[in-house]
Amino acid sequence: MRVVVIGGGAAGMSAASRVKRLLGQKVEVIVYEKGRWISFALCGTPYYIGCYVKNLFDLIHYPIEEFTRRRGIKVELNTEVVSVDVEKKVVEWKRGNEKGETKYDYLVIATGAKPVVPLNWIGYENVFVLHSLDDAERIRNYMTTRAVRRVAIVGGGYIGFELSEALRSLGKEVILIEALDRILPRMLDKDMAEHIYGMLESNNVNVKIGKKVKGIEGVGEKAQYVVLEDDSHIEVDAVIVAIGIKPNTELAERAGLKIGQTGALWVNEYMQTNVEHVYAAGDVVETRDLITGDRIWAPLAPAANKMGYVAGTNIAGQKARFPGIVRTSVTMAFGNIVAATGLTEEEAMQRGIDTIAVKIESNTKAAYAPIKGRITLKVIADAKTGKLLGAQAIGTDESAFWRINVIAALLYKQGTVWDLFYGDWGYMPLVAPVWDPLVIAARLLMRKLGETSNQV
Amino acid sequence: MRVVVIGGGAAGMSAASRVKRLLGQKVEVIVYEKGRWISFALCGTPYYIGCYVKNLFDLIHYPIEEFTRRRGIKVELNTEVVSVDVEKKVVEWKRGNEKGETKYDYLVIATGAKPVVPLNWIGYENVFVLHSLDDAERIRNYMTTRAVRRVAIVGGGYIGFELSEALRSLGKEVILIEALDRILPRMLDKDMAEHIYGMLESNNVNVKIGKKVKGIEGVGEKAQYVVLEDDSHIEVDAVIVAIGIKPNTELAERAGLKIGQTGALWVNEYMQTNVEHVYAAGDVVETRDLITGDRIWAPLAPAANKMGYVAGTNIAGQKARFPGIVRTSVTMAFGNIVAATGLTEEEAMQRGIDTIAVKIESNTKAAYAPIKGRITLKVIADAKTGKLLGAQAIGTDESAFWRINVIAALLYKQGTVWDLFYGDWGYMPLVAPVWDPLVIAARLLMRKLGETSNQV
Repeated sequence: MRVVVIGGGAAGMSAASRVKRLLGQKVEVIVYEKGRWISFALCGTPYYIGCYVKNLFDLIHYPIEEFTRRRGIKVELNTEVVSVDVEKKVVEWKRGNEKGETKYDYLVIATGAKPVVPLNWIGYENVFVLHSLDDAERIRNYMTTRAVRRVAIVGGGYIGFELSEALRSLGKEVILIEALDRILPRMLDKDMAEHIYGMLESNNVNVKIGKKVKGIEGVGEKAQYVVLEDDSHIEVDAVIVAIGIKPNTELAERAGLKIGQTGALWVNEYMQTNVEHVYAAGDVVETRDLITGDRIWAPLAPAANKMGYVAGTNIAGQKARFPGIVRTSVTMAFGNIVAATGLTEEEAMQRGIDTIAVKIESNTKAAYAPIKGRITLKVIADAKTGKLLGAQAIGTDESAFWRINVIAALLYKQGTVWDLFYGDWGYMPLVAPVWDPLVIAARLLMRKLGETSNQV
Repeated sequence: MRVVVIGGGAAGMSAASRVKRLLGQKVEVIVYEKGRWISFALCGTPYYIGCYVKNLFDLIHYPIEEFTRRRGIKVELNTEVVSVDVEKKVVEWKRGNEKGETKYDYLVIATGAKPVVPLNWIGYENVFVLHSLDDAERIRNYMTTRAVRRVAIVGGGYIGFELSEALRSLGKEVILIEALDRILPRMLDKDMAEHIYGMLESNNVNVKIGKKVKGIEGVGEKAQYVVLEDDSHIEVDAVIVAIGIKPNTELAERAGLKIGQTGALWVNEYMQTNVEHVYAAGDVVETRDLITGDRIWAPLAPAANKMGYVAGTNIAGQKARFPGIVRTSVTMAFGNIVAATGLTEEEAMQRGIDTIAVKIESNTKAAYAPIKGRITLKVIADAKTGKLLGAQAIGTDESAFWRINVIAALLYKQGTVWDLFYGDWGYMPLVAPVWDPLVIAARLLMRKLGETSNQV
């Protein structure tokens, strides 16, 4: 039996490892990776660029030998799969001038996602995207060896947010440009995003919200201006484009696999595509939103790993089911953590849900704790049922992240506002106040629900 | 309408505030507190003793004026309720030489807990218990103004654990004596407790496990020796006795109220005692363990606050229900956080549950994060159903506490090992690794459950 995995990222290596672990010598597992890295941590690249992480190799979760020698997986680097014949169960690949075909019994498509960049923006030597370790290397090299004073980051999502700190730490002037009406638009409601601008400005990040980039202008190989829709020209020494990513479905589409309504590759809960013996996992596939039941595309590393695990388990003849996600995410810049889970208030209202929300500001620990932090916490719930729908937090310590994880646990279990109130959260003055912000938010939501609507 | 509350701690003030908030001018609320403090944070007293918290007043959550002027509650300090007549609905109180009776429509008993101390151990000027702000004041005063070199702490629970750091920070020699076979015996299994001794010893705390104290010997007003059962004499300059607390039920018992099988005051989920119009809340009452369904006594501040809230809500004519707890607790010393929730493995096995458990050691963040910590995490589950039963963590950063809170959320919602694995925990290298210790522990438990027993 042979399992072919296309893509050596989180999902692909996780699937490969799982199959090999369960079937051992009975299976040959081959991973084709078109780049030179596997098991890499894209999420760490801003910290490499900012030189908090010194060595590029530090971003590798496991060295390749862990997979090849220890786990017995065959890994083919710099090898691109150019087509899949699902009838004949054959993949066609090329590596440099070399070409070949490989038959499979099971196939795992884990081709990930790729950055969205308008074609006419690229081609300049000083315009970058950040979607691989090689990109990270190029960016750090350029930023730290050329006379780069001013950098525009186009896109105020979490990559742009994290890069703004990385580039400030390299001493650059940073202009952060977001087309939508707020920073971190996929994570935060507008009112929460408002809490971030002051912090960015005080760290000398020039934030431009609601500014659409029309193009990039330059001379020869060098971009000189980022041009906004109002035709204003922003002079720059370099540009990083981080306006978004999309599922890398080309190969799968050409193979005739079903694409879901989100534009990502369709799979069921067992990570099976619509074609027998072909599985898919990671950023290339869509999954289920456990709050709404909708199919969504939300590329996130932990889910990619678990999808790979599920695909591998099922290929190996056991049964596992990937239930879906609640879209928990977290980012950080300048010592401020931003985390979110579930629906934003805006998303809930757009779906026609009768929504209540509260926003509180609180100490993260007892008022008298020697070291303490602040948190702004927003929690969103269904006004009819009290069911939790989502939450967002911005804070000066990790508890902002963890409080969101606690709410993620409740969302995962269809928890309510009353669960958030009565849930048995630990207390000790140096780590949390006796009325935790979680509990205060729940109490205010209970008030909005009407005092009498408690579960009796 | 008049509501009388006996006890100005967390539960009492919470109940008083809630009634007043819901009924306003329609109700008179009187709190009788036998001491001189209300709304105090006992959990902060070790940090006052260690001088991390400079002022005793800093341990007051709210100044008394918050309750009296702003909330309109009548607070009678230094006033002890000496009897309750539940037929006549009258409490009898004394304050100094003054005596009086007060009629009530509703009564809330929130008399808390009191320390357990063998009678023949006390009476020395240098032997202390720590169960009030006044105790904390006495201890700090004695430790910092007398020639105290060596202090024995009798009792290795969380108060003893926290005091060991406080006293070391004052430069004392510390001997920590625990009668049972481990430190923090109510929180940790023996194998987890083993991870703490090295840390305590390296901070020059002399830990004596499995050593029962027979008595305290002294001359005149000064204790000189702590005497163990093997008759060995430990010379000391001071002793703090922290061997445990018990519910302060005397008044309730004398009033004829029902005492539960745990020895604490019996209440139902609405915080009603067995006598009409008499409610009780906080450390004096027993509650329900949400994992086993048993009635338990587990005095913890957040639960006390919420019980007070529930009692107040019901007295005010609305309905609220205190569902019970999963016994989440947390303590900290020398930069190490210890947290636990649910049953220990030992407790689960003693109940005849077919139990599985895993223990892992892990980084708390991505391996390449500039600042990172370590965690030892144990998770316990039902071998038949995969239902989570409990967890314990020891770690060098707050994530040990928060990972336990995430598991507490799942315990509260009857979550399983699979929920812990598939739950959508956020990931970002600087705050958590991509395979979170929670997920790794879950995966190992899934393996023990048999790979095929997944929920399909």
